[in-house]
Amino acid sequence: MAETHSLELLVQALRRLPGVGVKSAQRMAFHLLQHDRDGALQLARALEHATASVKHCSLCHTFTEDDVCPTCKDPRRDRTQLCVVETPADQAAMERTGAYKGLFFVLMGKLSPLDGVGPRDIGLQKLFDRIAAPAAPGEPEVREVILATNFTAEGETTAHVIAQALKGRTDVQVTRLARGVPVGSELEYVDLGTIAHALVDRR
Amino acid sequence: MAETHSLELLVQALRRLPGVGVKSAQRMAFHLLQHDRDGALQLARALEHATASVKHCSLCHTFTEDDVCPTCKDPRRDRTQLCVVETPADQAAMERTGAYKGLFFVLMGKLSPLDGVGPRDIGLQKLFDRIAAPAAPGEPEVREVILATNFTAEGETTAHVIAQALKGRTDVQVTRLARGVPVGSELEYVDLGTIAHALVDRR
Ligand SMILES: [Zn+2]
Ligand SMILES: [Zn+2]
Repeated sequence: MAETHSLELLVQALRRLPGVGVKSAQRMAFHLLQHDRDGALQLARALEHATASVKHCSLCHTFTEDDVCPTCKDPRRDRTQLCVVETPADQAAMERTGAYKGLFFVLMGKLSPLDGVGPRDIGLQKLFDRIAAPAAPGEPEVREVILATNFTAEGETTAHVIAQALKGRTDVQVTRLARGVPVGSELEYVDLGTIAHALVDRR
Repeated sequence: MAETHSLELLVQALRRLPGVGVKSAQRMAFHLLQHDRDGALQLARALEHATASVKHCSLCHTFTEDDVCPTCKDPRRDRTQLCVVETPADQAAMERTGAYKGLFFVLMGKLSPLDGVGPRDIGLQKLFDRIAAPAAPGEPEVREVILATNFTAEGETTAHVIAQALKGRTDVQVTRLARGVPVGSELEYVDLGTIAHALVDRR
């Protein structure tokens, strides 16, 4: 395989995808060239198109092709609530519940001091600016910030740092998604840390 | 994420890669757009370039950018030996041993009746044509076909079908890579099937 230059370049390029090692990249290149050249060209076009057209919403920071994303533009949304999530996938999970009608702020990452990801890398200042001023002149201001970062060490750190930074803002209520026992699960099979948290956060 | 059309198309295109489900595709799209747009464009160019320039060697069927691949052109190769492998990766593994100096035929697949992959799909006729005539007029003919398909059910079936088809050719010797105990391993930790085969194939 080493002698075919453009095949080698394809394997190298595929390795830049997260979670793809040299064996997987070789398997992918082989599959595309042997069985799915249409798929290869479709992927090339999708990469070029997305790279050229996908940018960040100027209000909530999520991926969008407009200056302001459809969610931030939606007049039926409660503009006094701002739910802070790590990624567009987390935002999509919140949306699927149908239980939230406010706006979002998508961090596009999480604080991870060990990996050198600090407040600047995930645009925390942009979040604080967003909370400090209404989305547009004359619009209602943010009254509640719901921290919906993941319940991992890094997500908890991120939520903690945001909560600390907003401590002085008496006009803004900062809340966190409740930790607890997953709906439909039997206590016997739930891990102990989750049960302990559910006990502490009992209503 | 559903509202961004070109992002959705990118996720769909990434799902055509083998072993990539919807979660992985979303993670890949997020990574490329958030952290590695250079990588996305590099991958797009590599896909386009490989799709346009990579074809099959007219002699051994492996991927190449020329009519005949560098291995088949190499005058130092023993042109009377032909090693049959499933994929270019298998060919590369044989080459890395440094123990083989003949030519190759790359099936670009294996017989897999359950998946509907028959003799035509992996170009067996092309292999038989290759064995029937020398690579070029005046060149030595193939005297030995070494079956180096994988030691899986499908690889064994493929080897068996090729061996059966060449049974009438008394001028061509058909051999198979030896099954046996991997070099450097202790019998205690080798699986029983391998030991049994090593016993049958003992020299
Ligand atoms: Zn937005
Ligand atoms: Zn060749």
